[in-house]
Amino acid sequence: MVGRLDPDRLFPTDEKTRATARALYETVKDLPIISPHGHTDPRWYAENEAFPDPAQLFITPDHYVFRMLCSQGHSLESLGVPRADGGQTETDGRKIWRIFAENSHLFRATPSRMWLDHAFEEIFGWTELVNTKNADASYDHIAECLTQPDFRPRALFDRFNIEAIATTESPLDDLKWHRMIRESDWNGKVVTAYRPDAVVDPEFDGFAENIEKLGHMAGENATSWRGYLEAHRNRRAYFKDFGATSSDHGHPTARTENLSDKTADDLFQKALKGSCTPEEADAFRGHMLTEMAKMSLEDGLVLQIHPGSYRNHSGPVMTAFGRDKGFDIPTRTDYVRALKPMLDVVGMDPKLSIILFTLDETAYARELAPLAGVYPALKLGPAWWFYDSPEGMRRFREMTTETAGFYNTVGFNDDTRAFCSIPARHDVARRVDCAYLATLIATGRLAEDEAHEVAHDLSYRLAKQAYRL
Amino acid sequence: MVGRLDPDRLFPTDEKTRATARALYETVKDLPIISPHGHTDPRWYAENEAFPDPAQLFITPDHYVFRMLCSQGHSLESLGVPRADGGQTETDGRKIWRIFAENSHLFRATPSRMWLDHAFEEIFGWTELVNTKNADASYDHIAECLTQPDFRPRALFDRFNIEAIATTESPLDDLKWHRMIRESDWNGKVVTAYRPDAVVDPEFDGFAENIEKLGHMAGENATSWRGYLEAHRNRRAYFKDFGATSSDHGHPTARTENLSDKTADDLFQKALKGSCTPEEADAFRGHMLTEMAKMSLEDGLVLQIHPGSYRNHSGPVMTAFGRDKGFDIPTRTDYVRALKPMLDVVGMDPKLSIILFTLDETAYARELAPLAGVYPALKLGPAWWFYDSPEGMRRFREMTTETAGFYNTVGFNDDTRAFCSIPARHDVARRVDCAYLATLIATGRLAEDEAHEVAHDLSYRLAKQAYRL
Amino acid sequence: MVGRLDPDRLFPTDEKTRATARALYETVKDLPIISPHGHTDPRWYAENEAFPDPAQLFITPDHYVFRMLCSQGHSLESLGVPRADGGQTETDGRKIWRIFAENSHLFRATPSRMWLDHAFEEIFGWTELVNTKNADASYDHIAECLTQPDFRPRALFDRFNIEAIATTESPLDDLKWHRMIRESDWNGKVVTAYRPDAVVDPEFDGFAENIEKLGHMAGENATSWRGYLEAHRNRRAYFKDFGATSSDHGHPTARTENLSDKTADDLFQKALKGSCTPEEADAFRGHMLTEMAKMSLEDGLVLQIHPGSYRNHSGPVMTAFGRDKGFDIPTRTDYVRALKPMLDVVGMDPKLSIILFTLDETAYARELAPLAGVYPALKLGPAWWFYDSPEGMRRFREMTTETAGFYNTVGFNDDTRAFCSIPARHDVARRVDCAYLATLIATGRLAEDEAHEVAHDLSYRLAKQAYRL
Repeated sequence: MVGRLDPDRLFPTDEKTRATARALYETVKDLPIISPHGHTDPRWYAENEAFPDPAQLFITPDHYVFRMLCSQGHSLESLGVPRADGGQTETDGRKIWRIFAENSHLFRATPSRMWLDHAFEEIFGWTELVNTKNADASYDHIAECLTQPDFRPRALFDRFNIEAIATTESPLDDLKWHRMIRESDWNGKVVTAYRPDAVVDPEFDGFAENIEKLGHMAGENATSWRGYLEAHRNRRAYFKDFGATSSDHGHPTARTENLSDKTADDLFQKALKGSCTPEEADAFRGHMLTEMAKMSLEDGLVLQIHPGSYRNHSGPVMTAFGRDKGFDIPTRTDYVRALKPMLDVVGMDPKLSIILFTLDETAYARELAPLAGVYPALKLGPAWWFYDSPEGMRRFREMTTETAGFYNTVGFNDDTRAFCSIPARHDVARRVDCAYLATLIATGRLAEDEAHEVAHDLSYRLAKQAYRL
Repeated sequence: MVGRLDPDRLFPTDEKTRATARALYETVKDLPIISPHGHTDPRWYAENEAFPDPAQLFITPDHYVFRMLCSQGHSLESLGVPRADGGQTETDGRKIWRIFAENSHLFRATPSRMWLDHAFEEIFGWTELVNTKNADASYDHIAECLTQPDFRPRALFDRFNIEAIATTESPLDDLKWHRMIRESDWNGKVVTAYRPDAVVDPEFDGFAENIEKLGHMAGENATSWRGYLEAHRNRRAYFKDFGATSSDHGHPTARTENLSDKTADDLFQKALKGSCTPEEADAFRGHMLTEMAKMSLEDGLVLQIHPGSYRNHSGPVMTAFGRDKGFDIPTRTDYVRALKPMLDVVGMDPKLSIILFTLDETAYARELAPLAGVYPALKLGPAWWFYDSPEGMRRFREMTTETAGFYNTVGFNDDTRAFCSIPARHDVARRVDCAYLATLIATGRLAEDEAHEVAHDLSYRLAKQAYRL
Repeated sequence: MVGRLDPDRLFPTDEKTRATARALYETVKDLPIISPHGHTDPRWYAENEAFPDPAQLFITPDHYVFRMLCSQGHSLESLGVPRADGGQTETDGRKIWRIFAENSHLFRATPSRMWLDHAFEEIFGWTELVNTKNADASYDHIAECLTQPDFRPRALFDRFNIEAIATTESPLDDLKWHRMIRESDWNGKVVTAYRPDAVVDPEFDGFAENIEKLGHMAGENATSWRGYLEAHRNRRAYFKDFGATSSDHGHPTARTENLSDKTADDLFQKALKGSCTPEEADAFRGHMLTEMAKMSLEDGLVLQIHPGSYRNHSGPVMTAFGRDKGFDIPTRTDYVRALKPMLDVVGMDPKLSIILFTLDETAYARELAPLAGVYPALKLGPAWWFYDSPEGMRRFREMTTETAGFYNTVGFNDDTRAFCSIPARHDVARRVDCAYLATLIATGRLAEDEAHEVAHDLSYRLAKQAYRL
């Protein structure tokens, strides 16, 4: 098989710097994958069933792929995305695949194209550009692979050389798939992470019922402020039993608060009655970040903050198809005033690890690198959103390294629900980091022996250490 | 003649990538120019008179040129800019030209210098850097050219290889120059575009009189809400008769609204009485974008939104010289919440084409590419403001392509009132795009045959298709 | 001695462009240093005492250095930073130095590392990377140097080839060190600059007492509005006697106001009583910028505006250690509306020089370059904050040159209190500018002879001219 993947892809273009990047990359390309934050389905690893068909694997569940087709007028129905009302949508994987194949030009120079090409070639051995002419042949080829044992989730997990992967679950999840993995004879390391949106956001659907359920699961009266906090402590401990080393928080803004117990309790009671104003709901969410940080100091979970996404932007699409349909749009996000209340409480404690993410790149050089470059509790997460974006990754390093250095960052996250993209995404990150390091060497800003150490740290060690995996 | 223009200008610096860029550029450099958005004067093409003198052609009417001289202390009077009170200003083109020549160092590494050098050399055959020593000689050389038939507007239009150009007019314009062009024996394609600021912005000078005039021209009672909308429909149809394929909207922000007819009517009546608060005026403008989008669905005009310019920033200059004197300053512009009301009405309709521009580059990667990368009705216009800015064009591609791809963008616009800059600006855009594509090839992100197709699309086909020209 | 500094550092990586950059750099590298804005201590030059030890010279007083160690959990006490309560902190320079040496990896690819390496090698002849193994040896080597006459402040000043340096003092300073320098037999040019925060900011500690003191020093009744302005005039004249050519203003925002005398007086009286609301304090500060600009028109001092730093962000650190401990965090800063009141009064006057700085890079292309590219009174200061940041310097040129040109910028400032970093910082700036110019030549955007002139201007002439030094 002669593939189309350029072995020197993403390296600098001048020959000498390219050779340096290649040498650095050679030493890290085969390191195991640490995937400390992501959204793969633990059920895959628990049941180890075959993936149904190429469209179900690559297109219909991946809003980064179907959003591009949607942007050029292909209806979500035609791409098999389920309707909220259970109405008719395409179920024939082959027909969905054809739309994708006929529109492969839309993905030119996008990260999706880069990881899809990588997956087709490296995982499935399909080396042609998927297009109109080979739509059926490529579909058949991949479908045939999927019937084989080597393409089941655990086999792929091992083949991908994943040392550890985290999924993300709600405190209301009983973690039955994680239990099933643990009780199986398979040794893959799959841990959960604590994502409490449903029980810390007063504006979340069914907040009061969720709190009721939380209390029930935790064996606490979660409708009192003290009991509510205790229930969180209880569920966090339960999650830790299933390997969790982190919590994850996806608020609309980076706002934090440090309210008095009395004020927090008042807001909580209002939230239970559904009578918070938007401002009060925002204050409550902000205060809960500080509470979570304080619990992290007790139980050692790493606190991840992912602010700034305007979720489900299209009203009509939200009504027809529900959440997470590619209409999450980044917004401008401010960190300096927003984080101060929490940082005044816990920011100087080096035992705590708060990992900040952003969708607003303008905050990197201006706010995030200066904050992470001085507060012991703060670290910078990798370039979020399109984690597989080479330009975004490069800008991330150029905008943060000078002020925060490498050691206030935490290596790479893939943050994906697209299982087959994981090796490609980590490969892209390693290449971009090696390219960046090679440029530093070529411009006299870093010694070669130091760059080799940094390459290893960025590819493997920092993620393992920051997430305590 | 041996020119000073570097044949490889704006290409990547390493030899191999440069050769790729050159090869791509060779295939697109002679494509006809589609100029779907700009501000050249239709009277030029209608009357086909000689341009008066070099200063009147290059300096006095071009606020991008005279603003730089102003910034270093040369008064607008000395550059021949007319005063609002009719007071004394320089009328001797040669004296104005001398100021420009003596200060050519101010323009070093600016886009203005790049297109001026291009125009002097390629159009007029003047190959020296214009400076103090040759101020008079260069003036005389160009002045002599301007007396010749080959330098009249239609001859230049043909020589520039312009396939189609759009001008921009108010609904209150009778389009007499366009009529004259149509009735002439010349076949150049010059179309108009519908720019209704004067009749959709309650804060525009003489708004109530403008509406009166609008009604008169449209044969409608435009002071009723229904009649006002009908008058727009009528004038849009009239503009379509003169080739218009787009409308253009230059609001201070990107705000849209979707008000009830009752609320819109109330605001409109207030606007006619001049009693809108600034907030109400802003809401009315925002609502009119949604109305225009709905009319676009009826009549097929493409909707262009150019928000975020703080117009006429200097109070003293506005008083002394009036509008458009180089004091339009970009401001931070938010799109995500601002566009939602309109997008909830029309955003999912693939038959509609809304082209978004920005003066705030920070919105490209964060907001605009994610929006255009999912909404069927949205497309991204090219890097606005200094359309001739190579750095701006490069950053535009780097910040939008990964999320929106190439096919949610619409090729190049020159947006200029400087006729002689048109070939230079399109040439710069083609070079920068080819440089970008060559870099993608060199870094393994795009195949060479695909890049050739994209180069053609960006240089010619996308503009033609998006603007239906 | 064979050093580790790459003689081609910071130049472009392709050989041809690198050679051009090297040629440009050769012509400017030995030009004298103009340092028109900074925070070195005039007492050094006045007393000319030996610096106490390596830690006191490089680490303890430099918040850019100790902040990085703090970010990784090293307490400020362990780094010798004095506590506000006079509590115990490390006083053994050798122990502090060891922490630094053991953590030198934290500084990889940071500007601090670049200038420290430069200083160790070029000033002290120490050519190894400072690390755990040589912590004591490097400490001893530098400590030994510091005992020698050649390493005293005046000797270093001369060796650094500083033609002129400005320090920064409060109007309440009696300038005794400057007097002592003037009265000495040393000829080094050390001038002061007028930094009136303590007497223009109603929220400054002890504002009312400061005004009292100001009046006393100026021989005016400074508690009346007229007397207050007169006292400023008087102190500015006193500063001019000690060589001052500029004032410097570090407000939280770029807000300016042009209030009536009555309103300004009312706010001033409130400020004296300590009863300004935060909004009123902000308005007063904003108005004082306009007053200072008007005084600049009288006395010729250049007005520098440094807005947008959130000072002393950590409450606990502010309480324990006081101001300026590495917790100044940049914030988003808007200029367009903020500067209009002042610009409407003085912006069109070419005799005035207002130099704008920013910590928010997003304002460069969008707001600052367009403003400086048209207003005669405005110039752009260099890339602030980490003045020694090569990436920041490069982005500054890429984002401002196309709109403002080179001649609306003012060369380089080092803005440092780290004396030994001055040669390194100016060297970095010259290298980055030469790299940028070489790239412009290589891409056909600037002729070689013009680039040579610009290189000289950016390295020396523009700073001298803009600051009238």
